[in-house]
Amino acid sequence: MSDIESYQPPKVWTWDTESGGTFASTNRPIAGATHDEELQVGRHPLQLYSLATPNGVKVTVLLEELLEAGIEGAEYDAWLIRIGEGDQFGSDFVAINPNSKIPAMMDHSTTPPTRIFESGAILLYLAEKFGAFLTDADHRAEMLSWLMWQMGSAPYLGGGFGHFYAYAPYKMEYPINRFAMETKRQLDVLNRHLADHEWMAGGQYTIADIAIWAWYGQLVLGRQYDAAEFLDVESYTHVLAWAKKIDARPAVQRGQIVNKTSGPLERQLHERHDATDFDTETQDKIAGSE
Amino acid sequence: MSDIESYQPPKVWTWDTESGGTFASTNRPIAGATHDEELQVGRHPLQLYSLATPNGVKVTVLLEELLEAGIEGAEYDAWLIRIGEGDQFGSDFVAINPNSKIPAMMDHSTTPPTRIFESGAILLYLAEKFGAFLTDADHRAEMLSWLMWQMGSAPYLGGGFGHFYAYAPYKMEYPINRFAMETKRQLDVLNRHLADHEWMAGGQYTIADIAIWAWYGQLVLGRQYDAAEFLDVESYTHVLAWAKKIDARPAVQRGQIVNKTSGPLERQLHERHDATDFDTETQDKIAGSE
Repeated sequence: MSDIESYQPPKVWTWDTESGGTFASTNRPIAGATHDEELQVGRHPLQLYSLATPNGVKVTVLLEELLEAGIEGAEYDAWLIRIGEGDQFGSDFVAINPNSKIPAMMDHSTTPPTRIFESGAILLYLAEKFGAFLTDADHRAEMLSWLMWQMGSAPYLGGGFGHFYAYAPYKMEYPINRFAMETKRQLDVLNRHLADHEWMAGGQYTIADIAIWAWYGQLVLGRQYDAAEFLDVESYTHVLAWAKKIDARPAVQRGQIVNKTSGPLERQLHERHDATDFDTETQDKIAGSE
Repeated sequence: MSDIESYQPPKVWTWDTESGGTFASTNRPIAGATHDEELQVGRHPLQLYSLATPNGVKVTVLLEELLEAGIEGAEYDAWLIRIGEGDQFGSDFVAINPNSKIPAMMDHSTTPPTRIFESGAILLYLAEKFGAFLTDADHRAEMLSWLMWQMGSAPYLGGGFGHFYAYAPYKMEYPINRFAMETKRQLDVLNRHLADHEWMAGGQYTIADIAIWAWYGQLVLGRQYDAAEFLDVESYTHVLAWAKKIDARPAVQRGQIVNKTSGPLERQLHERHDATDFDTETQDKIAGSE
């Protein structure tokens, strides 16, 4: 350990563009657009610019749930933002989300149109706009607490554990231990809560469940970082049962394939513009027309 | 680098209780209470259990702003939770916040009393309860976006940069670079926004400003991790001007010393139960009576 213990940071940090591992090209110490790039606008009130990461899936699941519940105003176009290719640094995208992260959304039903960024904000905005997937007023504090818990906790799972376990250029023991421990603690927080509660807040399925399912539900279902055995995810039995129950919902099945560019072709719907896309576009793709 | 490159994680992660650096004793892979411990309840409707970290200060600043604005229902007792001593693992605290993090709050003005945890949730709950420090409806999406941005971004600053730069048991080059780069990107996101906007959202001072100030404002003011030179915080001139403007507010001056246990004694108010505590208790402490 003598090598690494001898490292001393410089007085002033400077950007070494050589380091970084997987996704290094998407990480920069400066914000703002790198190039001009227009975004397309479809025919629906809601325009989503996203990718099927956990944060992206939160929003497409909620939108599909709203449509499943018969709310017509929730019709949306979902456009693909390829973060590996730098789409999030295009000028139109940065104008919607100055933080250059997916998901970002425009609501064209307002005058002027409204921008919303950060997945947690989009969930709350849509749930409040349509009055659905919230709790009653008495349980709003509980729902907000768990929604914010997800927003503040998942960076330790994604930007911490996932990065150091799966994406960093080499394996580092201390960071992997640090973030594995925190991820397991978070799973245990959920497991204890779900031992006594059917849903996260207010006795009903809400945006808090959707947000937490996208990260922790998919983690215990073995879909993230190839880490199911390492984290012993199946020991969190209450989280697993809750995750499976959510996963079985038709809207959740649809939502998780929107803007998806990996995995089996029949589970990829790169763009979504109409309810029928779930049938036709995947067939086109399998036929090789995309 | 050959030593560290040769590290291979085990098949299944196990808890090594020896490692961890500063705050190692507060990090565990399991949730739940470690001991029975009652929390005190004061005479005001709002009972806060906290510590003057950035997340704690968010809430005490908002409460002092509400009182400064003449909202009597916002009177509160602030009790000290010493996280270095494990108070957050006491049974009563865990019943309020199963995540064992400060701040946590009980609202005794409702029947039954309401628990709220996660600083972002407490801010939104209080702002909505009293109808203050929000925007008009047209700018709600913008306010929510920036509030959620703070919740999802600060873990990279606190749990990432702060940990590896200031608290880890030895200096690791890759994690410090990773999180310094992200922290600087986040500061640049804010700097570009504040170049054109007086406040974060809706042209007025809101809970989004309070939340972001507590982390990024205090960072550019040189109060976090002794990292002002390393991150060249003064180059973010628009953030710095905005941070100073907020820092000068009387409520912000009061809010940042509540539950504070470090720094000059006259800037420490371990508990807050009454507006007059800001005058008398600090004097008591200086006189050595605590």
